[in-house]
Amino acid sequence: MASHSLVSSPHPLAPFSSHHHHHHLCLRHSPNLSTLPFPKPIKNKPNHSLRCAVSIEKEVPETERPFTFLRDSDDSSHSSSSSTSSVRARFETMIRAAQDSVCEAIEAVENGPKFKEDVWSRPGGGGGISRVLQDGNVFEKAGVNVSVVYGVMPPEAYRAAKGSASDQKPGPVPFFAAGVSSVLHPKNPFAPTLHFNYRYFETDAPKDVPGAPRQWWFGGGTDFTPAYIFEDDVKHFHSIQKQACDKFDPSFYPRFKKWCDDYFYIKVRHHRDERRGLGGIFFDDLNDYDQEMLLKFSTECANSVVPAYIPIVEKRKDMEFTEQNKAWQQLRRGRYVEFNLVYDRGTTFGLKTGGRIESILVSLPLSARWEYDHKPEEGTEEWKLLDACINPKEWI
Amino acid sequence: MASHSLVSSPHPLAPFSSHHHHHHLCLRHSPNLSTLPFPKPIKNKPNHSLRCAVSIEKEVPETERPFTFLRDSDDSSHSSSSSTSSVRARFETMIRAAQDSVCEAIEAVENGPKFKEDVWSRPGGGGGISRVLQDGNVFEKAGVNVSVVYGVMPPEAYRAAKGSASDQKPGPVPFFAAGVSSVLHPKNPFAPTLHFNYRYFETDAPKDVPGAPRQWWFGGGTDFTPAYIFEDDVKHFHSIQKQACDKFDPSFYPRFKKWCDDYFYIKVRHHRDERRGLGGIFFDDLNDYDQEMLLKFSTECANSVVPAYIPIVEKRKDMEFTEQNKAWQQLRRGRYVEFNLVYDRGTTFGLKTGGRIESILVSLPLSARWEYDHKPEEGTEEWKLLDACINPKEWI
Repeated sequence: MASHSLVSSPHPLAPFSSHHHHHHLCLRHSPNLSTLPFPKPIKNKPNHSLRCAVSIEKEVPETERPFTFLRDSDDSSHSSSSSTSSVRARFETMIRAAQDSVCEAIEAVENGPKFKEDVWSRPGGGGGISRVLQDGNVFEKAGVNVSVVYGVMPPEAYRAAKGSASDQKPGPVPFFAAGVSSVLHPKNPFAPTLHFNYRYFETDAPKDVPGAPRQWWFGGGTDFTPAYIFEDDVKHFHSIQKQACDKFDPSFYPRFKKWCDDYFYIKVRHHRDERRGLGGIFFDDLNDYDQEMLLKFSTECANSVVPAYIPIVEKRKDMEFTEQNKAWQQLRRGRYVEFNLVYDRGTTFGLKTGGRIESILVSLPLSARWEYDHKPEEGTEEWKLLDACINPKEWI
Repeated sequence: MASHSLVSSPHPLAPFSSHHHHHHLCLRHSPNLSTLPFPKPIKNKPNHSLRCAVSIEKEVPETERPFTFLRDSDDSSHSSSSSTSSVRARFETMIRAAQDSVCEAIEAVENGPKFKEDVWSRPGGGGGISRVLQDGNVFEKAGVNVSVVYGVMPPEAYRAAKGSASDQKPGPVPFFAAGVSSVLHPKNPFAPTLHFNYRYFETDAPKDVPGAPRQWWFGGGTDFTPAYIFEDDVKHFHSIQKQACDKFDPSFYPRFKKWCDDYFYIKVRHHRDERRGLGGIFFDDLNDYDQEMLLKFSTECANSVVPAYIPIVEKRKDMEFTEQNKAWQQLRRGRYVEFNLVYDRGTTFGLKTGGRIESILVSLPLSARWEYDHKPEEGTEEWKLLDACINPKEWI
């Protein structure tokens, strides 16, 4: 990949807002460009019993990419490697490699324009790399971020996650989270928007319960959002996802495909049952498989982004289109914005608790459009897309 | 006003979602295009004690505007007028007149393009009129809505509002709400966006406490959001707001001006202290003045929209502008979208509980833009606008 211009990022973090303590905002993972992953959701606790205690330090711009964002104690090159620290380190290595390879592939398609890079770290450990390519030859906006976060979560979350019935009151639980996240918005209305995000989350034992087991989870997914359907493209995209899944478990693709259809359901459009796009795969809170297997699975999924997506972009990027095609793409971009700003838990969580604003909002398209009460005429290509968003299909 | 085309609106309502029971979403008023006003916020109750029981019936399209959206029992022309039903009826008359006069003024500026009108009602009473003019000569999108809502709120809200310490458990409290709401987005980047909303809210006594007093509140405001500052325009706009306020109480303008500055604070941009625009007036939950006085005050405010805004549009609509001016306006539109979708309580409440989707989202501009990490150069006109959004000024 070509060298990145290193631009300092002076955005301080918003102070943690005490207004936003709803656990569905605070304690859920979510696929969005804020690669800040979230502690595991609590399933058996009433909402009001939890206050979000996840707040993060102000980030500091860096002038170059560090070898690792891990704390020294986590970095296996600095300490005797335990298998746990090794997963952290290997996951960071994986997401940084994924960021590099996706950015390289995008720059190859762009043939000239390069990503702009912002690197930042946090004093207590962790940090991230944001890369954005805006108004390129092929992409309107392409953002690919990695981040590593050290934080502290409320003890209730840890206890509920463990299913412990202990009366003991543990203190706040330190956690580690790392992820890669990306949204790619091409210019040509026949080239689909792509989103992917892969993340790993781990808790330490509470300080006063040193012997308690660590918890860990994997989450992520890749999904795409065309404005027009080319069945070959959809089949190609889903086939690559299925191939990646099938290498690990035959149940993965059908399960994670459906999970994706359900997650990207635009609730704002509930009455139309509309998803934002044509799906892909999505999974969250996975820890009931071998940890090494899930690390390999996440790696496989991240490595599948380029072969799943780039050939489609190559095929569509120079197609001729009309003003009407472009206007429809802009309307679909508007729905994308609605979904991200109103419903995506990662976005709202990130904005309200102090994630790096510009990294979070780079998921938004460069431009979008809202027309009052727009309805495509039945039978048109625009209508077919909408129909497929309303009625998710088995594409392969 | 020219005749409106009556277009039927087939959007059913989203079912009430049990996920969204946070009282700050459910029980706050908010100025947005959803003219659905909300029950009074509860100040002394912990959040978790309230579940939002406000849900509304599916709306039905109407082919013509009814004389009134009030239930027969509320309509003073059908029943012996009590002072309470009379305020409901007079408020509805006022907001419909305000809708007519603002639309007439916009159409006069447009000189050709006309508003499109959707009328709907709800089986149990209430309904609304949405008017939208899109891609006109002068306006990119202009929406002016009125609505009348009959609903039911949780008894806790009523009791907290009354400050009653009674152990008696009243049933759900019927409420009445009516409002006019509008967002006007002109095309020319030198012509500001305007938002206004005036609403009236009333509860009935709970069914099992027939003697309990009714509660009522007024709320609303007018604020404007330029992309470029013309001091004369800002002074003119604020002067008209002050004139309207001063007719009623010398404390109103300074108080409601500050309230507006505080409300339109973009929390998403907390670290920059940025408001979405240059303010105006905003008030909520007003009931500690004479009811007749507040009805007259709301009327005066609504009647001030045309003289406060239209002369500015007339002055700016044909100014020459560069591509750069337009791009800056588009970026400010992006912030407007962020504010509306992430923070505006009316929008999020409306979307999540079953307001008429298209009426709510008509507040969004026709198009908007997000650039990664955009910062205007210090000293430029763009920087001056941002500075005024960060540091609210006394304009008059």
